[in-house]
Amino acid sequence: MTSYLIGIDGGGTSCRAAVAGPDGHILGRGKSGAANILTDPETALQNIADAAGAAFDDAGLDPAGVTAASAILGVAGHNVGDAVHYVKRRLPFAAADIESDGLIALQGALGDKDGAVAILGTGTIYIARRGGTVSYIGGWGFTIGDHGSGARIGHALLQESLLAYDGIHEASPVTGSVLSEFNNDPRDVVDFARLAKPGEFGRYAPRVFDFAGRGDPVAMRLLRAAAITVDEALDVVVARGARAICLLGGLAPLYRPWLAERHQPHFVEAEADALSGAVALAAQRFGTRPEVVA
Amino acid sequence: MTSYLIGIDGGGTSCRAAVAGPDGHILGRGKSGAANILTDPETALQNIADAAGAAFDDAGLDPAGVTAASAILGVAGHNVGDAVHYVKRRLPFAAADIESDGLIALQGALGDKDGAVAILGTGTIYIARRGGTVSYIGGWGFTIGDHGSGARIGHALLQESLLAYDGIHEASPVTGSVLSEFNNDPRDVVDFARLAKPGEFGRYAPRVFDFAGRGDPVAMRLLRAAAITVDEALDVVVARGARAICLLGGLAPLYRPWLAERHQPHFVEAEADALSGAVALAAQRFGTRPEVVA
Repeated sequence: MTSYLIGIDGGGTSCRAAVAGPDGHILGRGKSGAANILTDPETALQNIADAAGAAFDDAGLDPAGVTAASAILGVAGHNVGDAVHYVKRRLPFAAADIESDGLIALQGALGDKDGAVAILGTGTIYIARRGGTVSYIGGWGFTIGDHGSGARIGHALLQESLLAYDGIHEASPVTGSVLSEFNNDPRDVVDFARLAKPGEFGRYAPRVFDFAGRGDPVAMRLLRAAAITVDEALDVVVARGARAICLLGGLAPLYRPWLAERHQPHFVEAEADALSGAVALAAQRFGTRPEVVA
Repeated sequence: MTSYLIGIDGGGTSCRAAVAGPDGHILGRGKSGAANILTDPETALQNIADAAGAAFDDAGLDPAGVTAASAILGVAGHNVGDAVHYVKRRLPFAAADIESDGLIALQGALGDKDGAVAILGTGTIYIARRGGTVSYIGGWGFTIGDHGSGARIGHALLQESLLAYDGIHEASPVTGSVLSEFNNDPRDVVDFARLAKPGEFGRYAPRVFDFAGRGDPVAMRLLRAAAITVDEALDVVVARGARAICLLGGLAPLYRPWLAERHQPHFVEAEADALSGAVALAAQRFGTRPEVVA
């Protein structure tokens, strides 16, 4: 009986899976709902199983084969707390490892080559690989990390809108757009922010890029400050030897022109997506493809 | 029957009350537990009643007289949501107004004179009064306001400690002290920060002042940034006509040398505390003392 390989890309909004033969060749793909193992492990487990089953279906394979398969899961929220152990023990696979969503993204983007990925989305994290050694920079979450992330940019915009309301900082069209959205009542901004999750702050980030592109002085100031945090992290990535850096995440295309000249020559396009990276890692670890990492 | 006046200073850690005759002369004081009307209105109501009763006791008056008294309450969390209305309807007094803790502090600090107070504690807020018109600057809470506050300074320190851990920013004794407190494991810092309330972040602020006083470069950078946010708010206060500014709150004495030269000539000492201010407002509004405010 063939032992299939499964790659899982579990995110906060959806979970994607791919099934492959022992050589890592992808045979089918499937998708399900959110898989955040930190905030909702039970739903994550269900959606991981559903996505894997859907991938087997898509490949024309019996979904019962899922339990004999070996899987690599890339999940958001990896490295925080005991959720990884809890979920790993309950996975419906014969063998499985849980990796960060960043590692599978790096494997997809760079294949087996050295280099780094900068994931610039609702959060930010930087993952560098050199000679089989993987190192993480940043990615500590919205509360005291994720500088330059969409969540932090959106948060900064709301903050600037209140500073503009009070006359402490200059007002501009972008701060005006926020205040009018909240009925020009700062208490409404505060009420929103008090309960907002990172993703809700992050929804304001594209607006900052948009207004900055049209010369809004406050939006430009916020983005320059955000870009400095990204540039500083990229300096560390480069200092660790990365010469090829792939910008990933929803903000990557928006960010690129704001980043420092010194980093522009390092930027490369991704070879493949994170799901392909998860499958490739599964093929190295459980399949017939030799593992590259030391 | 004499209608007594009550002043209440309700804070997040304790509630203080004073009872006065109709002319505002204080006869007795009392104290009880926390009175945060926003996060725990039922406990706040109980502690307000307890503190008022204790003040009557202290004055040698029958605590049953509380229900015939008129009161001014200065409370933290004023101006946010419906909590004020909820609490006001349930107070055990014959008449009462709820004001911000800032307004009673201003009345205590400046008496009936024009000027401003800058409250620099776990949060920050600026209150200016000119010709009977009171205006508030800042004070929007930790999430998207309270720049320069103890909570924001402590938060910034934890953040810098992670940036130092990642090699993105310089390390220094103060970031080292944080990391060693958290077992040199950034995940422990993240776990703490994710659940920390503003007061818990704020407990790190005195450490930043302490290390900055001994020349720690990171602590000095954090304090310079924090002081700029205070100076910017003071600029607005001065632009609104304030010539006498009283620095209040736990961080006030620590902050003063870090604030800009241009503001130093405006700083004055407080005439009296916030509780005295609440009594003075009660005497103006409900007693025999004429109201000054337009």
